[in-house]
Parts: sequence; structure tokens; C-alpha cells
Amino acid sequence: MANRRMIMSAFFFNPQGDHRMSWRHPGAPGKEIFGLDYFRRLAGAAEEAKMDAIFLADHVAIWDSYESNIAHYANTRLEPLTLLSALAAVTSNIGLISTASASYTEPYNLARTFASLDHISGGRSAWNVVTSGMNEEAMNFGRDGNIEHAYRYERAAEFLETAKALWDSIEEEALLFDKRSGFFADPARVHRINHVGKHFKVRGPLNVPRPPQGYPIIVQAGSSEDGKVLAAKHAEINFSLSRSIEEGKKYRADFDARLITNGRTPDSLKILPGILPIVAASASEAEEKRDFLESLTPPRLAVDLVSSWVGKDLSSFPADGPVPELPDEGTFNGQRTNLIRVKAMAAQGMTIRQIASQVAKAGTAPVMAGTPKQIADEMEAWFIEGAADGFNLMFPVLPGDWQDFTRDVAPELQRRGLVQREYAPGTLRDKLGLQRPANMFVSAR
Amino acid sequence: MANRRMIMSAFFFNPQGDHRMSWRHPGAPGKEIFGLDYFRRLAGAAEEAKMDAIFLADHVAIWDSYESNIAHYANTRLEPLTLLSALAAVTSNIGLISTASASYTEPYNLARTFASLDHISGGRSAWNVVTSGMNEEAMNFGRDGNIEHAYRYERAAEFLETAKALWDSIEEEALLFDKRSGFFADPARVHRINHVGKHFKVRGPLNVPRPPQGYPIIVQAGSSEDGKVLAAKHAEINFSLSRSIEEGKKYRADFDARLITNGRTPDSLKILPGILPIVAASASEAEEKRDFLESLTPPRLAVDLVSSWVGKDLSSFPADGPVPELPDEGTFNGQRTNLIRVKAMAAQGMTIRQIASQVAKAGTAPVMAGTPKQIADEMEAWFIEGAADGFNLMFPVLPGDWQDFTRDVAPELQRRGLVQREYAPGTLRDKLGLQRPANMFVSAR
Ligand SMILES: Cc1cc2nc3c(=O)[nH]c(=O)nc-3n(C[C@H](O)[C@H](O)[C@H](O)COP(=O)(O)O)c2cc1C
Ligand SMILES: Cc1cc2nc3c(=O)[nH]c(=O)nc-3n(C[C@H](O)[C@H](O)[C@H](O)COP(=O)(O)O)c2cc1C
Repeated sequence: MANRRMIMSAFFFNPQGDHRMSWRHPGAPGKEIFGLDYFRRLAGAAEEAKMDAIFLADHVAIWDSYESNIAHYANTRLEPLTLLSALAAVTSNIGLISTASASYTEPYNLARTFASLDHISGGRSAWNVVTSGMNEEAMNFGRDGNIEHAYRYERAAEFLETAKALWDSIEEEALLFDKRSGFFADPARVHRINHVGKHFKVRGPLNVPRPPQGYPIIVQAGSSEDGKVLAAKHAEINFSLSRSIEEGKKYRADFDARLITNGRTPDSLKILPGILPIVAASASEAEEKRDFLESLTPPRLAVDLVSSWVGKDLSSFPADGPVPELPDEGTFNGQRTNLIRVKAMAAQGMTIRQIASQVAKAGTAPVMAGTPKQIADEMEAWFIEGAADGFNLMFPVLPGDWQDFTRDVAPELQRRGLVQREYAPGTLRDKLGLQRPANMFVSAR
Repeated sequence: MANRRMIMSAFFFNPQGDHRMSWRHPGAPGKEIFGLDYFRRLAGAAEEAKMDAIFLADHVAIWDSYESNIAHYANTRLEPLTLLSALAAVTSNIGLISTASASYTEPYNLARTFASLDHISGGRSAWNVVTSGMNEEAMNFGRDGNIEHAYRYERAAEFLETAKALWDSIEEEALLFDKRSGFFADPARVHRINHVGKHFKVRGPLNVPRPPQGYPIIVQAGSSEDGKVLAAKHAEINFSLSRSIEEGKKYRADFDARLITNGRTPDSLKILPGILPIVAASASEAEEKRDFLESLTPPRLAVDLVSSWVGKDLSSFPADGPVPELPDEGTFNGQRTNLIRVKAMAAQGMTIRQIASQVAKAGTAPVMAGTPKQIADEMEAWFIEGAADGFNLMFPVLPGDWQDFTRDVAPELQRRGLVQREYAPGTLRDKLGLQRPANMFVSAR
């Protein structure tokens, strides 16, 4: 624990910030979200503050089950691997965590892209493995609706096995570049993987050499049972949503047990709960900032949001009445965590309007609002108590909250010795204290 | 014709150069081909010389039908879209042409990536649409061997229709960013494409707004009949292989007729023949450079290369004997042009060894070797006679031949007023005089 330090990941899905209606904020960017400069500045500020990584969420669809989604929600953004590849060229130390779907890509293609990003960035890539739970996503890839939950996670597990074999398929020592003899490679160290499984048949080898990090760091987000099983086996970073230190500690303990079952040590998985940091001169100013944000959500959008969470159109039911019967979570094919959350609120007797207003709020992660000192205190408490190895910073409004945090909170955390003051040398794995995985073909010899 | 100028595209597949054994050349790079700096310098030199574009070829496999391929051939490289995204961040005018397979990717994913690259680069992206003819490629994507030729091109055509609809799905005027009213977008200008075809079912809309260029510039390379049909319908640049001015003019005339049949004007397709420029102080020095390169190919590799071109292992036949019976080109599933070329040599009575040595030579494109003035003369003749709208520069050895050309030949062409001295403003389409395509949803209104 001596050298343990907080890991800081700066997150976004909407480039205007994590609040659903952040784009309406006076400080939010306009069309510059489709150019590189905006992100170059964000990345620069993060690197200046010695943050560990930028984390880009992703969906392979527009959210448009309801017309209000298109009208009011900022549905468009750049593809994250393209954006992070560009940012790799203009940054030098920060980690680049990209979300990519294991349900709607091919292992050979995705393994190549991550391997290439890892080479280009000098070993700074990480892959947030998601399984894409939206109907809208399924319909962009030949299907009529979402694929069954367990099937998606089964495919993701096979995808990871396949990708790892591909990353290993050209051993570190395979490429000789021996101009004199004419031997470019040692054929004994270049492997066909000959993977044949339920979901994939891939011969290999990959045509990119093993990434500097061996594999990109494997990240998993979210906490359904299937997701935890996948994470306990493969993930090295888990993005979690815990509402309190107590919950965070329970979550950690649960994962520690799972890791041990998988023959892994607890320190091989870093858990980073999402938090919404809002820097303000005082607690009341922070409160005003939140209230203002909440005022930005059109009521119809809020109801439609709940409808899409529960897979049932609630807009025809009286807004001040109770929630009608909802699907069974055991067989629900969307994001089960969300369905369960709405059911809990309904069970407390909340009306549709009340639930909609609750759901539309800044997010499901805890808000840490206040002065830099207050925010640092709270983060320190989570960290010291073992509820977090660091944080996934889900800034409500960009670029403001990101800039405020890097300018005001990061130095405070540095003064306390909780976060790094300088980047350590080496790859992202080296910097985070994560081991470089052994090559399965070398180990098998 | 008044403002007609030569288009210059700087090509590579192997980052060591287009000669198959370029990696063995004393001036060829080593492991730096997996980092960004090497390519940043190449791109910088090209931009300095006001070249129009960098063109990256690609295959989704290692070439390893024969063990000698792995041993002697430089089989590994970065994935081009990742590399070009990174280069987009450190260049500002040069076009970025990436090869991508229509056989082994999904329209939604690829359309997003190209749209994102087009935004990030300020409208400098182009897509070289290929159908991936190697068995090695098929086996990385669930198949036992290559997909039938016509089927691949049929899929590619449907892929392009789908991608274009996706690129159009968010109209230029759709995004309002109206913070006051809360309307992010005008739902009437955001479209589901509802594509249902033989190969794809894609609902859309894309979650990236229409690219600055409307579509990336569509590029097609190669000249099978199926390929020409696709190009005549969709392509705006064609990379060709013509061995003489005469052949180039015939090729142009053939395409002009095809374009007119498709309701297109001849100037909507730029034809760029590949050439291998070798700058030397004299013709004899150029000859020496070529001979040296040819001495680098191990004989076994040369025979295996022919075997893979014709889909039959020739290594067990006497090297000084005739070529055995070869597959029928009408049903051949590999690159037919290559099979036909070998058959022609066999028909002339060449032995396996002779054909192997011929095939192993620098390439199938004409070598233009000599002083800068001699090379410029030859390029000028092709251009003036209407055999080329510009050239695809396939440098035998990198970085040397690329640097020599940009330093010595480009200024000579500039002095003659044949190529640009400065970049024109705007997107790559603007710079090349290619029209921005109309949006099909706007046109349909
Ligand atoms: C912090 C965080 C970030 C996430 N990012 C993404 C994302 O970018 N794309 C995505 O499809 N899902 C994302 N998810 C969703 C999870 O991967 C997962 O689908 C969700 O938690 C529901 O779990 P389940 O799909 O296992 O039921 C994220 C979840 C969390 C907690
Ligand atoms: C200059 C040039 C570049 C090419 N680049 C690629 C490439 O990067 N990837 C690829 O799979 N094929 C590439 N090809 C092959 C063509 O797309 C095509 O497959 C080939 O010419 C044979 O034609 P066919 O496949 O229609 O039979 C290239 C061809 C030429 C002439």
C-alpha cells in the first residue's frame, strides 16, 4: 500500500459533458465537438494535470426510440478509436481508453486497431469492452432487436480469448529484421491461432506485432452478474457506480473474492467508481449549478428516457399517476441495472413525473460538489477507506468542469500526495502498476 | 483543361517501400515502422512538396500460404485507418487515402470511422474500396477460403449504397444546437435509412454528422471487369496499372465510355496510374539501383510468390521446366489480373525460374528511373497525352525514394507548372476539383 495512489480517469460520452442536457449549458461547445482542436485542448489540460487517462464511452447507434430523443438529446459524436488515434499523436503520457463493442465488431479487425493504437501511442491504449445493450444498436447490424444478454457476454468472452491469441501470435522476438541473411521473421515464433469456437473462426496470425503492452489494458464497465464474471476473468480496470463508501467497499470485497476464484490477486484489478465533480466557491454555489443543469431537461425527454430504460412507452400514462407493470428483470434484454433502479423507485410509490425528474438528473454516480478542498476530502475518504483505487471523473459540463477540476482539484490532490505529480516512465501498464501479460505461445513452449 | 494539373499520390503498403524485399535495403527502416515518428516525417516531406495525398494499401491478413513468406517477407504493419487518424493530427493539407475491405467490415462501423476521420482532418479523407481476394484474409473472418469474386463485388456495391445513405442520414442543416429552445436537432432532417438488402440490414441514422466532404472521396484500385463496373458507378479516383502511354490512353477511353453510360462526366473520375520512381544521377546509376533491389529476393520466395498468384504450389516442379496447367481465369477466385499475367508469360515459353524472377521484380507498374529531369519528362508525356490525371507514386524503397522524389522531382514538376506550388483552400474534394455529392435525402424532398 506504500506506493498506492489514486488513478484519475477523465471520462466523456457526450463531448459536452456527462449531464444529458449539458449541450444546452451556456458554456458548452457547439459544432467544435466535431473537430480535433476541442479535444486536443481537453487532453492537454488533463496531461498538464498529470491525469492517468482519458476514457471515451461509445454506442453504435443514435438513441432514437422516441422522437424527443432526436429533438432534444445531443446524439452525435466522433467515433472514439479514430479520435483517440488522433489524440495519440498530440499527447505523450496520458492513457487512451476506448470503448468498443464485442457484439458488433470482428476480433481480427478490432485486435489490429488496438494493437496499432498501442504501437502508435507507445503503449497507452486500453479497451473498455462493452456488449451493446440497446435495440437501436442491434438494428444497425442486421438484427430486429437486441441480442439476448447472456449470449452477448458469451460472445464477449470468446472475443477476448480470440483477441488475446491474436495479440500473442507474433512473439516479441519473432521479427528479426536481419537484412544480411534475408530473414525478416523467425517462422517458429509466428503463430496461426486456429481459433474455432461458437462465435468465431479465426486463423491468424495478426499482421501487427505484439502491442508494447502485450495487450491493451482490458477495462469493463457496469455491474450486471454477467459483466462481473467477465471482469473477474479479464478486466484490469473496472468502472463502477457506487453511491457511497459503504457500497464501494462491498463492491470491492465482492470483486476480491471473484478475483481469487479466478487465480488472480486483488491488485490486478483497479476499481474506479464514477463521480460527478462540480467545483464551486461554496456548497450553495454548487447546489445552484446542479439546479440549473436540472432545469435544462425538457419534461417529455425525461419521460421518454425512463421509457427507454424500462422498455415500455410511459408517455401515454398519466404523468402524475403510478408506473404501470414493467418487464421482468430476469429476462430483460436491456440494461438490467436501469430497469431495477426504476422498479425500486416505483415500489416507493413515486409517480412517473417524479421518477422522470429523478432519472433525468445529472447521472447515477454520486455528485461531489463543493470547493476543491471539499471535493478532495471526499475523494480521499473513498480512497483511504478502500472504496476506490481512483476515480472515473464524469464531468457534468465540458469543457468547464474538466478545466476547473484539472486547475483546482488536481493540485490539491497532488499536495496531499494522493495522485502523481509527474508521469512515471514506460507504458500505461507500467504507470498504473499493472503487469504486462505473458505471451501464451511463449509460455506454452 | 486550362487548370488541369497532375495529382500526386504517395503510396505504400510495406512501410519499407513497394519493392517486396525493400526491408533488406541498407537504407530501409527497422522497428521504427511501428511508431508514429517515421510516418510523421514521410508525411511532412510530402506536405512540404505539396503532394496531394498519402495512400495506404492494406490487407486483413499476413501472406503466409508458404513458409518462405513468413521468413523473408515483411508481413507486418500498422492498420491504416489508425495510422492516418494519427497523421491527421500532425498534418494540415495532405489527403489521407485509406484502404478498407468491404468484404470483412460492417457498413455502420466503417461509415462512422471514415466520417470521423473526415471531420477530424477537415475533409481530407478518401476510401480505397477493396474486396480482399486472398484466402489468408477469408480465413481470419470465419471462412475456409476466399469468397467468390462476383459475390464480393456485389457486396461491395451494396456496402457503398448503404454507407452513402448513412453519411447522408444526418443532413447538413439537421443539427441546430439551439440552447434556448432546447432543440438539438430537427427530427425532420435526421433519417433512418432502413436499408434491407441481400448483404446488409441497417436501420441508421449514423451517429456522426455528414462528413465535411459529403462522402469521403471514393477510390478504387485494380482493373478486373467487376472492379471497373464498381468504379464506373462510384469511384472518383482510380488507381491503375498501365505499362505504357498507349495502354493508359486506352484505359482512360474505356472508362470514359463507362462513365457516360453511368450518367457521369469523364472529369468526375481521376485516373492515377502507378509508377515506380527511382531518382538517380544518371540512367546507369538508376539501373544499378534496380539491379541491387532485384538481388535481394531469395529465389524460393520468388517461386512461392508465383504459386500464390496462380493458386497452385509450383515449388515441387523443376524450376527450369515449364509451368504446369493453371486454373481457369473465368472461375478463378484470387486476383485474376495476376493469374492472367503469369499465363501470358508461360505462353511465351518462360520457365518457372524465369517467371519467378520476373514476378519478383520491383512491381507491375512501370519504373521511371533517371535524373529528376528525365522522370519529369516521362510523367509530363503521360499527362499531356491524356494517359494519366496524375500518378500513384509507388516508391521502391522508403524513406529514400520518397525523400528523393519530394526533394528533387516535385520542384521540377512545379517549375513546369504541372503540379501545384501551394495547396488550394478547402477540403480534399475542393483541392482536386471533385464535386461534393448532393445529399440523397435533401434531393428527395
Ligand atoms: C461508467 C460506465 C461506463 C459505461 N460505458 C458504456 C459505453 O461506453 N458503452 C456501452 O455500450 N455501455 C457502457 N456502459 C454500460 C455497461 O457496459 C453495461 O452494459 C451496463 O452497466 C449494464 O450492464 P449489463 O449490460 O451487463 O446489463 C457503461 C457503464 C458504466 C457504469
Ligand atoms: C495500385 C493498386 C493498389 C491496390 N491496393 C490494394 C489494397 O490495398 N488492398 C487490397 O486488398 N487490394 C488492393 N489492390 C487490388 C485490387 O483492389 C484488386 O483486388 C486487384 O486489382 C485485382 O482485381 P480483382 O480483385 O477485381 O480481381 C490494389 C490494386 C492496385 C492496382
